[in-house]
Amino acid sequence: MQRTEHHASFGGRQEVWQHTSTTLGCDMKFGLYLPPAALAGEACPLLYWLSGLTCTEQNFITKAGAQQVAAELGLILIAPDTSPRGDNVPNDPAYDLGQGAGFYLNATQAPWAKNYRMEDYVVDELPTALAALLAQQGVKTTGRQGIFGHSMGGHGALTLALRHPGRYQSLSAFAPIVAPRLVPWGQKVFTAYLGDDPAAWAAHDAVSLIATAQDRLPILVDQGTDDEFLKQLQPELLQAECDQVGHPLTLRMQPGYDHSYYFIASFMGDHLRHHATALRG
Amino acid sequence: MQRTEHHASFGGRQEVWQHTSTTLGCDMKFGLYLPPAALAGEACPLLYWLSGLTCTEQNFITKAGAQQVAAELGLILIAPDTSPRGDNVPNDPAYDLGQGAGFYLNATQAPWAKNYRMEDYVVDELPTALAALLAQQGVKTTGRQGIFGHSMGGHGALTLALRHPGRYQSLSAFAPIVAPRLVPWGQKVFTAYLGDDPAAWAAHDAVSLIATAQDRLPILVDQGTDDEFLKQLQPELLQAECDQVGHPLTLRMQPGYDHSYYFIASFMGDHLRHHATALRG
Repeated sequence: MQRTEHHASFGGRQEVWQHTSTTLGCDMKFGLYLPPAALAGEACPLLYWLSGLTCTEQNFITKAGAQQVAAELGLILIAPDTSPRGDNVPNDPAYDLGQGAGFYLNATQAPWAKNYRMEDYVVDELPTALAALLAQQGVKTTGRQGIFGHSMGGHGALTLALRHPGRYQSLSAFAPIVAPRLVPWGQKVFTAYLGDDPAAWAAHDAVSLIATAQDRLPILVDQGTDDEFLKQLQPELLQAECDQVGHPLTLRMQPGYDHSYYFIASFMGDHLRHHATALRG
Repeated sequence: MQRTEHHASFGGRQEVWQHTSTTLGCDMKFGLYLPPAALAGEACPLLYWLSGLTCTEQNFITKAGAQQVAAELGLILIAPDTSPRGDNVPNDPAYDLGQGAGFYLNATQAPWAKNYRMEDYVVDELPTALAALLAQQGVKTTGRQGIFGHSMGGHGALTLALRHPGRYQSLSAFAPIVAPRLVPWGQKVFTAYLGDDPAAWAAHDAVSLIATAQDRLPILVDQGTDDEFLKQLQPELLQAECDQVGHPLTLRMQPGYDHSYYFIASFMGDHLRHHATALRG
């Protein structure tokens, strides 16, 4: 575990760490924001951010403007990369398949199955490595954690929380892909990573998972009405399914907002407060 | 004048515009943030941001986190590029000379003199073009404006405000180059752009200009103590000169902060409030 960046930020510290992932078979980087409370020895909850297509660990930490409110609320932020990386990892020239497009699942098909295990990485390996790192640095945690993300990362946050009940105590998303099995982005990568088994697709599709969710974790979703990818996102499908089964969802359609980090930054404070309320409650 | 980007942001709008600069002999882009008050027809003051070496108009608008507080305070933010650009504009392979390193002055030496006229661009041509654009869009301004910047852009803000008394009603800087004539960055570009005349150098050196400043505009400067470029910045020279002549300066040494946008973002709110107090009075 090697620290490749560290910057004072709002009284806390924004760091980037690199480690070798045995799950993914490559070196991985992640962003780690330690709020002032964590540096002062106070136990803080963890909040995982999952980024969208083409992103690395850098997009969130440089553009989302999350550090100020995380500093105020005492939240530790973790921002992993979006896929395995490197010359020895299979890739595809398209932006929406392969490196930068891990979709937070474990691939079962060649050539992806060996490295593309982002679900195991985010849910198991990274938290274990992080716990060891934080303990070594004397940073205390409360044992509670939340998850959120954007677009492909919103899909990741929703599906990982729904597939691993009890693992996360708070959940939200910006412009998530809520029904990947029904839209081009999802159909393309699910075919590549999971083959053509409809059950495998449904197991990684938030709208399909809602009905059988074992806990009713309240979900906050923000969606811009001028989002250029609205046809790939279709938040109304999530709303309809949540209404159907009584899953608590607050879906906010934000007039005029697009798919960019300008949209994310504008509502970041609301999301961090949503998580802090559930995690610190 | 062509709009190349527009994004809803904190209830306002972050835009990027491109226009042909006759002063610089090339096409130029600049960022423009319109706060909600400006969109609602209320007259707002203008605040110019000048970026540092290697930056374009993008760095400030994506990384500084300024939009939230600008929205609250009703400030219009303008972020120009840092030099003339393009294949027909002289350049140098080094990061600290030529494109990306305009230093906010009018060059007098070949091959730079034809295009490198960033002082005239920032002080005259851009404000005139902007006034026409805002009028055309029905955006009202108060007639008052401030200027601030980072590193080379901090030098730009200080020297342009000191060289053009009455033009700006508020002034601040993050980690500015306060005495370019005395440090390697400045000595290199001043030799290239201005030749070897000591008087020409002093005319673009903030510490040299303070003594004869025609108005005593209060200056706020933040400087990180862990800034990797501290030897090129030397804020203590500005402090000594301001003490000597009674120029109001608030120099804050920020423990542990470096030269990055994480530092800038951490104190952006304070700077915007400094400007709003002076501009909205």
